[in-house]
Amino acid sequence: MKNQQKYIGVDLGGTNITAGIVTHCGEILHKLTISTKAYRKSDEIIADIIMLINKLLDKNGMDISDIKSIGADSPGAIDVNKGEVIFAGNLNWIHIPLKDELQKAFSISCFVGNDANVAALAEALFGAGKGKKSILLMTLGTGIGGGYIKDGRIQAGFHGVGAEIGHFILFPEGRECTCGNKGCFEAYASATGIINMGKDAIKENPDCMIAKRAFNNPSNITAKIIIDSAKENDKIALKIFGDYTRYIAYGIINIINLINPEVIIIGGGISRAGDFLLDSIKTQVTPRIFCKQAPYSDIILSKMGNEAGIIGAAMLS
Amino acid sequence: MKNQQKYIGVDLGGTNITAGIVTHCGEILHKLTISTKAYRKSDEIIADIIMLINKLLDKNGMDISDIKSIGADSPGAIDVNKGEVIFAGNLNWIHIPLKDELQKAFSISCFVGNDANVAALAEALFGAGKGKKSILLMTLGTGIGGGYIKDGRIQAGFHGVGAEIGHFILFPEGRECTCGNKGCFEAYASATGIINMGKDAIKENPDCMIAKRAFNNPSNITAKIIIDSAKENDKIALKIFGDYTRYIAYGIINIINLINPEVIIIGGGISRAGDFLLDSIKTQVTPRIFCKQAPYSDIILSKMGNEAGIIGAAMLS
Repeated sequence: MKNQQKYIGVDLGGTNITAGIVTHCGEILHKLTISTKAYRKSDEIIADIIMLINKLLDKNGMDISDIKSIGADSPGAIDVNKGEVIFAGNLNWIHIPLKDELQKAFSISCFVGNDANVAALAEALFGAGKGKKSILLMTLGTGIGGGYIKDGRIQAGFHGVGAEIGHFILFPEGRECTCGNKGCFEAYASATGIINMGKDAIKENPDCMIAKRAFNNPSNITAKIIIDSAKENDKIALKIFGDYTRYIAYGIINIINLINPEVIIIGGGISRAGDFLLDSIKTQVTPRIFCKQAPYSDIILSKMGNEAGIIGAAMLS
Repeated sequence: MKNQQKYIGVDLGGTNITAGIVTHCGEILHKLTISTKAYRKSDEIIADIIMLINKLLDKNGMDISDIKSIGADSPGAIDVNKGEVIFAGNLNWIHIPLKDELQKAFSISCFVGNDANVAALAEALFGAGKGKKSILLMTLGTGIGGGYIKDGRIQAGFHGVGAEIGHFILFPEGRECTCGNKGCFEAYASATGIINMGKDAIKENPDCMIAKRAFNNPSNITAKIIIDSAKENDKIALKIFGDYTRYIAYGIINIINLINPEVIIIGGGISRAGDFLLDSIKTQVTPRIFCKQAPYSDIILSKMGNEAGIIGAAMLS
């Protein structure tokens, strides 16, 4: 039985590839990281993933027969059934049959998932979503990622392009988004969104707390500077923070009104602002709930760290 | 076996209650309608539903033992597990245990569902969604209803308040919605939405085709007048129609980016505009798709008529 309870998870990102041996309890026994060098062709990158997995097995005195399955995540749109990366912009991958390549190399069950979905799976199984029937993970970072898990299964939609919550349209014809559309949720409610609001604010208020902490250089502004200034009751920072959490609240309302998961989990770098963030979001969500007579999705903070990708990928099935 | 294949479906609306005997193929054998008289107390209305079902059985020479199950729909928020109407504004119902009452009266399996979800179930089983893995029904009427069906099951969310697509926020702080919030999808993309656009337009253009067809009376304006004028290439009507289908397209983009069903089915009164509507919607959706490399949800017209409620309710399980 022992060898049936170990899995390999591969977290494939634009910068690094990390592979880990993961137990059925979501514990990482050992992991290795290499640089992705994303400018290379996909087959070179896949060869590196295979090499990394072999090295990981070697270092642990293990054979592939000790592993139940291999799961890999990737940014972008994934055809989960085929295990194909349909499109991953930062890897420059189009229609890459990652699952087939891994299966050819190792002759065991292999799975491929979108990175945000896989992180949500880890959160559902071992993090803040443990024991919940359905969760939606919203990661507030440079962009906004989303993953929807129901009954322990990733809900990526029929074509695998669902849970792209960063790109639902919040302000039609609003701010330009990196995806080429306008007014996406991500353009407002990501870390980039709040930083841009800070940059606009210091233009008009060159003496404000945010400007001081950023040494009057807009490119020094971080989400942390703005949120810390808001925590200290700086008026301008508080205004930005209030607008920012209102944008997040609009997104949450849309998620509740469409899928109504048991909990919505806030993750990503911004979530480090903790209860200060959560309380403000909840205050903005409550008055906008459609059916005020019914209970609705709880909003909580993520518990998983950077290893959610490896752990979630390992749990793909 | 014969008696296991008949079901009773009850469509409870603010105006009428219709009950029908439905076969497992979704065929209505017989139906009866009474007026809801929604101003009455819930127990009087429920007594009428019970009376209506008994009458239906009598008229068909049937006994309750010939029926496999009874399903009833209701507007508003439903706790599907309890079979309770949490809140239905136009019935003035709050926490009404409809399922328990029906079960007490008939001692067979009874189920309760939201009217839009139940209509979507009928569409999924017997209409435009037949054979599809997942469908989202969007009914464009006075308001906008939504129902999401996956693997033949209603997806109403953890608290039963999901698929309320009429009330996701499309234009934050935009037009007032009947729900008390601002900027809901329904305030723009419903029949009411396009009628309001027509009313605004004839103020500025009292000689336009819409004004003429409405005999210069804003309260005569219908969605049909506007759409028919657009079909005849009237410039003002075409502008309104283009804006209107763009609003619908934003909603569809949000549905694809969040749940990505196999098909999105457009129903409700507005859908009678047929391919003229569908083509315009598709033209507006395509450039706004997030992942242009992947296939995405097909958009098609509803096939079920007014009986979707009875048929869908009968199929609840």
